[in-house]
Parts: sequence; structure tokens; C-alpha cells
Amino acid sequence: MSDPSGEKTGHSPLRPSVRSVRTGASPISEMMTRALSEPDLISLAAGFVDYETLPVAEVREAMDALLAEAGSARAALQYGTTRGLPALRERLVAHIAKLDGFDPGERGYAADRMVVGTGSQQLLYLLCEVLLDPGDIVILGHPSYFVFMDALRSAGVTCRTVPLDDEGLRVDALATLFDELCSSGQGERVKLLYTVSYFQNPTGLSLSASRRRALVNLVQRAGLPAQPVIVEDAAYRELRYDGDDVPSVRSLDTTGDRVVYLGTFSKPFAPGMKLGYGLFGRELAGRVEQLKGAHDFGSSNLVQHLAHRVLEMGLYGKHVAQLRESYRRRRDATVAALEREMPDGVRWVHPAGGLYVWLTLPESVETGPTSTLFETSVSKGMLYVPGEFCFPEDPAVATPHHYIRLSFGVGSIDRIVEGVTRLGEAVRACL
Amino acid sequence: MSDPSGEKTGHSPLRPSVRSVRTGASPISEMMTRALSEPDLISLAAGFVDYETLPVAEVREAMDALLAEAGSARAALQYGTTRGLPALRERLVAHIAKLDGFDPGERGYAADRMVVGTGSQQLLYLLCEVLLDPGDIVILGHPSYFVFMDALRSAGVTCRTVPLDDEGLRVDALATLFDELCSSGQGERVKLLYTVSYFQNPTGLSLSASRRRALVNLVQRAGLPAQPVIVEDAAYRELRYDGDDVPSVRSLDTTGDRVVYLGTFSKPFAPGMKLGYGLFGRELAGRVEQLKGAHDFGSSNLVQHLAHRVLEMGLYGKHVAQLRESYRRRRDATVAALEREMPDGVRWVHPAGGLYVWLTLPESVETGPTSTLFETSVSKGMLYVPGEFCFPEDPAVATPHHYIRLSFGVGSIDRIVEGVTRLGEAVRACL
Repeated sequence: MSDPSGEKTGHSPLRPSVRSVRTGASPISEMMTRALSEPDLISLAAGFVDYETLPVAEVREAMDALLAEAGSARAALQYGTTRGLPALRERLVAHIAKLDGFDPGERGYAADRMVVGTGSQQLLYLLCEVLLDPGDIVILGHPSYFVFMDALRSAGVTCRTVPLDDEGLRVDALATLFDELCSSGQGERVKLLYTVSYFQNPTGLSLSASRRRALVNLVQRAGLPAQPVIVEDAAYRELRYDGDDVPSVRSLDTTGDRVVYLGTFSKPFAPGMKLGYGLFGRELAGRVEQLKGAHDFGSSNLVQHLAHRVLEMGLYGKHVAQLRESYRRRRDATVAALEREMPDGVRWVHPAGGLYVWLTLPESVETGPTSTLFETSVSKGMLYVPGEFCFPEDPAVATPHHYIRLSFGVGSIDRIVEGVTRLGEAVRACL
Repeated sequence: MSDPSGEKTGHSPLRPSVRSVRTGASPISEMMTRALSEPDLISLAAGFVDYETLPVAEVREAMDALLAEAGSARAALQYGTTRGLPALRERLVAHIAKLDGFDPGERGYAADRMVVGTGSQQLLYLLCEVLLDPGDIVILGHPSYFVFMDALRSAGVTCRTVPLDDEGLRVDALATLFDELCSSGQGERVKLLYTVSYFQNPTGLSLSASRRRALVNLVQRAGLPAQPVIVEDAAYRELRYDGDDVPSVRSLDTTGDRVVYLGTFSKPFAPGMKLGYGLFGRELAGRVEQLKGAHDFGSSNLVQHLAHRVLEMGLYGKHVAQLRESYRRRRDATVAALEREMPDGVRWVHPAGGLYVWLTLPESVETGPTSTLFETSVSKGMLYVPGEFCFPEDPAVATPHHYIRLSFGVGSIDRIVEGVTRLGEAVRACL
């Protein structure tokens, strides 16, 4: 290209940062975009929530109340604070404390330790930026929540993993891993341990009460040069269909400085609000707030005022109770369809909550995006998440290729059952 | 601390990342927190917008329309996409293109180059993360918008600055700086050039039409080893009180790959929505989206659907027209009060738009947070932003200490005039 002056005006190529290059594209979002371009596909892949149960009436009622009075409406339309609306933080802290059987003020259940974020994902990203330098080590389940892995890839850290069993993260294996890291001189690089403690995404498994105690005890005595921060992602806590709630890992941390508790409005209320919250140790709360000041100096104030009304007017509790009934029926229908449609040799976790069923196929049946099973399923009009996207890249552990994550969050029960039926046909064709 | 087992369970100190340590606290937010704890203070400091003119009726009307129908309400309460609501991006691109005298599709005014963010600040932060490695060089005005400096401190870059005159950023000084950086071998570290092209925060100065052309021409021919990305922050563009709009710097970039255009709903509509948008070069849009996927995989979908309605129903245009009238009166009252109350030797920019008046005091009168003038003003019940917070730390340029930023965005005209009167008394006491 040239211009009338005759000088060269060609554009030089973009020079992205080291972080941008290592972030790259999210492998699963590329796969999803491609697959979702197929018409008439039944997707049991995305972790969306059910359209029919979205809280339209509740949001309308809360928004009407908020906007009816000029004073409260203006407060919601003005700038807020970086840390988040104080009245909302008070309510959220009281909510968590109550679930855990404590009063606000006990054990660091305090609004000044809470930071509100644009979804709990933003708080995960901020935690990574506050705690991690490239080359640091993060410990997580094998498998784990895959969007968090995008933040870890961006941070340039090494993932080390611990397997799960019926009681969740195997703390005995974690102890072995700690020993190995310490004896190889890597102990001081271990900065963060991540766990989805209730109905984990993708497995649906929860950390048992005794494992929670063992985890907190181990981390504070593991003999590491310094203790990693435990991040407890409680996104699915209130979507429980069987049994009673279990106190959080956070509730076992007497100081409140060892365990971060993350919650969200996305799963139990409405993803479109994009509101998450974190209860941090005192120093960590300050550092997360500082960095959030540079990120955006506060999430949407309007959404925070809405969330406050939703809690204050009792609409949140009412909606969660309805959601539990609705999702329980969906979970039951999904599991019943699996029992009916899946051939011998396919196993799955019966989830007591959350939005996912985790399937184990015979090791000989690969499920990845270029596998025969995946192609067959898509050609039959059914989409699942290949399990391999859920395994962090641990340099010491091979990624298995015979798992599947199904979500029963979206679509009618009839569609879900039809999706499972099509998957059953595809699996039988590949055995 | 010990537990019954007798083992040590003391908590080890937090180990923050290099980024967290260099981010630190925002100096101005600490100052503001301290000062605002004084009762009965008239603040002409914060860049908030006027409470009285916040678009309560408009938001109510748009929200009613959005939530009245279950289909549109559910779409707004479900997850959105990382890049942002397509229909909103289409409208925003058409809006910018129209202001610039082009049709959508021309010169890269295209929705697939737009990313929606949690305020334009988030897009600035993402740009920093995508483009900058520690030690890189960013060029900005002397003075500049101070919240962007928080993002730059977090990125660990070196700021180099260019003075402003009546026509905005001095492109001749920029040319000299480019030469200096190239001859000292630092040319390839220059990655980004930031300009608030309309009614700059803090000076109120705009980049003239001829300077816009000179800037684009210089950057594409400056002889740098590679061209820096120009970031044009147009936050105040639509708050113009005198004269006609000037096409953006972006409009002069025939490829659309050299200049990023950032806009916001915060200044022309409602800060509480926390909605910003960026028009990027093609590759840059993709990289910003990738990183935003790890940050939060999309800003509030509810707020984006609301913004779309606000534009579609003509409420945005109507409100901006009202705002211009209201702020023009406030600007006029502020300038008239300055003319009446300020002693000889104090000068200021008469702003043709935006929210700020920039005062130059005699060099002997320091204005910083520990200065006699600042203390005197606060004791008289008046708060301003010390100009020194608006000067980036340029290793080659000294920070002056005799400037003041006043904001006329918040409070009644009577309060603003009273604030200026108190400041006049304080200045006279310090001469």
C-alpha cells in the first residue's frame, strides 16, 4: 500500500504480549461454535441454565421496586464502588454465614472481606493475577472446571492434579503430591488449590464432610514452605436435590484467611446478571480490590442494586426452591434415560445436585472432538462435551479420552431424553 | 496458635504476585476516601455525573419493554457471549459510523470488530494485557486520565509523555519523542499511544482536526521498528457544548487496524450500567475477546439487552440532548464563578465539552494532597483533585505541582458555585 506522498504506509503486524500468546483460544469454545452451527442439534453440552425457569417475574418485581422511587433508581444508575455495594455485601455474607451455621462477624464472615465481581469467573481471574507468577503451581482436581483452565493458561502456571473419588478430591493423593513437590524443591511455587466443593463441574461429585476437614488440616500442616490459598468454588451449592447441605470448607477455616469462598447468581438465579461474589482473607480482599480498581473499578452498580432487592424481597430464596424442584426432575429423567439407553460398559455418577452427569465409557471408546463417537453423535443431532476438555494439562498425568460430560440444564425433558437416546445409539455404534 | 495435636498451625503470610505488588493502591482513591470522610464537604473532585439528570424514566421505559415479554426477558437473563450481544454491537457500530460520516461496513466499522466490556476501563485493561509486557513503553498526554495509569502500573510498563496545547496532544513533540526512542534503541518497545481525543480528562482540551490527521500520518510513518496501536478514548465525545462534532481519529484510519476507538455509556447515559465498547482492528478484536473469555466470558447480558433497548427506542439520543443542555449550564456557571472568584495569576481552560475545568496556579502555589492549599480548601469544606495525580510518571519529565482539576458533573449549580468561591478564598490565602 502507498499514499500520494510515495512513502510507505503499510501496516506492521500486531505484536501481542506474552500473556496474549499463551492465552490463545479456548479449545472448547471453538468446538462449541463449530458444533452449534449444525441445525436441529440437541445440545447437552453447554452449562447454560433452563430458559423456562429463568426468574422473569422475580426480576420484574425487584426492578420495579428499584426504579419506582427516584432516589433508589438514581443510586443504582450512578457509579458504585470497586469492592461492591455495601448493603449487598452485608446480605451475601449473612447468607453464606447462615448456610454454614454461623453469625455474621464470626470467623471472618464480614462484608469488608467480600468483593463483588462480574461473575465468579472474574474473581477467579483476579485471584490468579493477585497470587500467581508464571511458573507457579496450581493444584486442582482431575478433572476440573474448564473455564478456570483458561485463566490458568493466561497466567502461565503449571497445573498439578489430584484424582477424585466418591468423596471428591482425594486428600491422600494430595498429601502425596505435596510431599513430592517439597522433596523436589517446588514446594514454594505452590500458591493455590482450587476445588468445586459441591456437585463439581464436570463430575457432580462433592467433597465429603470428613474430606473437608482433612483438606484444611493437611494444607495448614503439609510442611510446604508456605501454605497455598484454598479456593472453594461453591457455584452449585444451592442446587442440591438429595440430602442436607454440608458446611463449606471455608467454615472450617477458623481464621478466614486460608480459604476463599466464591459464590454466584448465575446458577441459582440468573446468569444474565453476571454477578459473583468472593469472601476472602483480609489482606487478599484488599489486593483483589486494588487490582479490580485497575480492571474496571467496580462491576455494574445497577445489577448489584437489583441483586440486593432480589435478596431483600425474598425472591432469591423462593426462586432457588423452585429451581431445585425443576432440576431434580430433569436430573431424574436424565439418569432414567441413561439407565434405559446406555449399553453395558458405560458407567456414570448419579449426581445429588448441580447440572451435570459424568459418563465413563470403555477405555477403547474415545470421545474427543475428532473421534468416531463425537462425529456419530453430531450426525445424529446430539452434542456433548468431550471429557478430555475437563482435564488440566498436568505434566505428570496422562489425559484420558473416554469420558463425557452431559448437562441437563437446558431444554425440555423430552429433548434431554431424546438427546440421551441418540447418544446411546451412537455409543452402541462405536462399541 | 496451636491445636490439640500440638502441631503448629500458624498461618503463613500471603505471597502476592509481582503484578499485585506493583499494582499497589491507587493514590487518588486513598486521597478521596480520606477527604470524603469529612462531613459537609463540597466535592468538585470525583468525575461522577449529575444525580438529577440520571435517566430514571428512560431506564424504566426500556426495562419495562425488555421484561414485559417472556421471550426477550429470558434472553436477557440467560448467558450471553464473550464478545457481546450482536444486536447491540450492530447498533453501536452504526452509531459511531454515523457520527464519523460513514456507513457501517466502510473502513472496518463492523460489528465483528467490536467487543463490549464492563465499562471502557475493562477494555483499556484488556488492551494492556493483550499488547504490553513489562518494560514496554506507552505514550500518553502530560497530563492524562488517571485511572488508566492504574492499569499501566499493573502492567509494569514505562510511561513516556507528550505535552498538550490548545489543539490537544502536540504531535511535533510526539515526533521528537519517537526520534529519541528510536535513536536510543527503544523504538520496538513502543506498543501503545493513548489519547482522550474529545474534551480530555483532565484538561478539557480536544485534539484538533489537523492534529488528528497529523497523528495518524506520523504514527504510520514515524520510522519506528513497528507501529504502536493508537487508542482513542472518546468517553466525552457526545458531551459537547460549543461547536460541531469532529470526526474521530479512528475515522482517519483507512484500514481500521491502527486505531482503537473506545466508547462508554457512563458519561452520556448512566455510569451504573457499567457498559463500554471498543472498535478494534481485526486481529486485536480476536485477542481481546480471547482474554476476556478468561476474565469473565462476557459482561452482564441483562445490561447489554437494556442498552440495546435504550438505543433502539431512541432514549439514548433524547437523553444525551438533555444532558448537553444541563451540563452546558453547569459549565457556564463554573467558568463564571472562576472569573469572579479567582485572583490574578490563576488561569484555566474554557472547556467546549466534557466535565472538567483545568486550573493553572502560579508555580509557587502547590496543590498536592499535603499542600497548604489542599488543607485550606478541605478546612473550608471544598475538595478538588490535585493536578499532580494526573501526570504519568515519565522518567524524563518532572511532575508539576501547581494544577487543579475541577469537575462540574455533580451537585447543584449553587453548590458548585459555592465550591468555587471557597476555593477562591483558599487560593487567596495561599498567595
